Amino acid sequence: MKIIIVGATGTMGKHLSSAFEKEHDIIRASSKGGDIRVDITNLESVEEMYKTVGPFDALICTAGPSHIGPWSKMSPLDFKNGLEGKLIGQVNLVLIGQHYINPKGSFTLITGALSHEPVPMFANASAANGGVESFVRAAAIELEKGIRINAVSPTVIEASPQYFAYFQGDIPVTMQQLEYGFRKSVFGANTGQIIKPY
Amino acid sequence: MKIIIVGATGTMGKHLSSAFEKEHDIIRASSKGGDIRVDITNLESVEEMYKTVGPFDALICTAGPSHIGPWSKMSPLDFKNGLEGKLIGQVNLVLIGQHYINPKGSFTLITGALSHEPVPMFANASAANGGVESFVRAAAIELEKGIRINAVSPTVIEASPQYFAYFQGDIPVTMQQLEYGFRKSVFGANTGQIIKPY
Repeated sequence: MKIIIVGATGTMGKHLSSAFEKEHDIIRASSKGGDIRVDITNLESVEEMYKTVGPFDALICTAGPSHIGPWSKMSPLDFKNGLEGKLIGQVNLVLIGQHYINPKGSFTLITGALSHEPVPMFANASAANGGVESFVRAAAIELEKGIRINAVSPTVIEASPQYFAYFQGDIPVTMQQLEYGFRKSVFGANTGQIIKPY
Repeated sequence: MKIIIVGATGTMGKHLSSAFEKEHDIIRASSKGGDIRVDITNLESVEEMYKTVGPFDALICTAGPSHIGPWSKMSPLDFKNGLEGKLIGQVNLVLIGQHYINPKGSFTLITGALSHEPVPMFANASAANGGVESFVRAAAIELEKGIRINAVSPTVIEASPQYFAYFQGDIPVTMQQLEYGFRKSVFGANTGQIIKPY
């Protein structure tokens, strides 16, 4: 299976690339290197990535920047800019990618528990995650040719201890659990699901 | 209670304005007339509305345009523009309004069942609704001075039969039910809730 991993140089992307490359053809895409450069907030960059890679069977996105900061000081511009990556960027990967993906292919996006369990400082990420999750459910009923779409929704990631203080009481998701979540989406048969890997 | 109703000239806004004006001071705001003009996709317009109205106790928003159209033909620009009203516009009403609202005031936004029950042609509205719902939960834990925020989430509205064909099997929500949903948010004590008025 030919799998594009967007965010391949990040914590999650690195793990998934290593785990899946034993049995699959992995294209590492990232804003910072890998096999191909892509900026998911730039439409031309996304289109160029798909043109370069050619037909593929699965796209995994683990990239999704958003705005972090206290609510009372969040400006409308902070909020809007914060949607560009995790919500709009991920949606664009699917809107554009639907024209390049093979029949029966799949898209797997990244969301997170913040959509339903907010914590202070992360209201922008909550909104982005909620948008991604509802988008996944909606896109699943309209995608054609057996193409599937799901999202994986972890809590805080074991390998990102710098965030632990914000997520009090959330049991960190291990990299192995996270990998299982993506396996379920990419190699399973479900669609329109928000997969909680814990 | 001084209540701003944004979208006051629309189907829902008209009903709520009439229902609440018997006991409250209603400010009808709309892009098309009313007591005060406001374009929720324009930051200066929103700021100007709050400056003109002065301190208030509750804001209700029933306005939230989004992009309607088939998935396979939706462009990234369609999707992005479609977020400007229902998601970003409503969030901006709160981000800016938090600096004008009275202590113990409330914001009540409009969302809809599409966040969890998608129908073809409405993927953009689904994403916007999901974003609004997660935003409401996140903002509720950060708003200060006892200020509350909720969203009302109807299915298709009884008074909008032009949409019935899209929402097969959804029992239309009556205007009375809708009014009860907003009453629960504005005159109740809950916060961070997605109120289903059915």
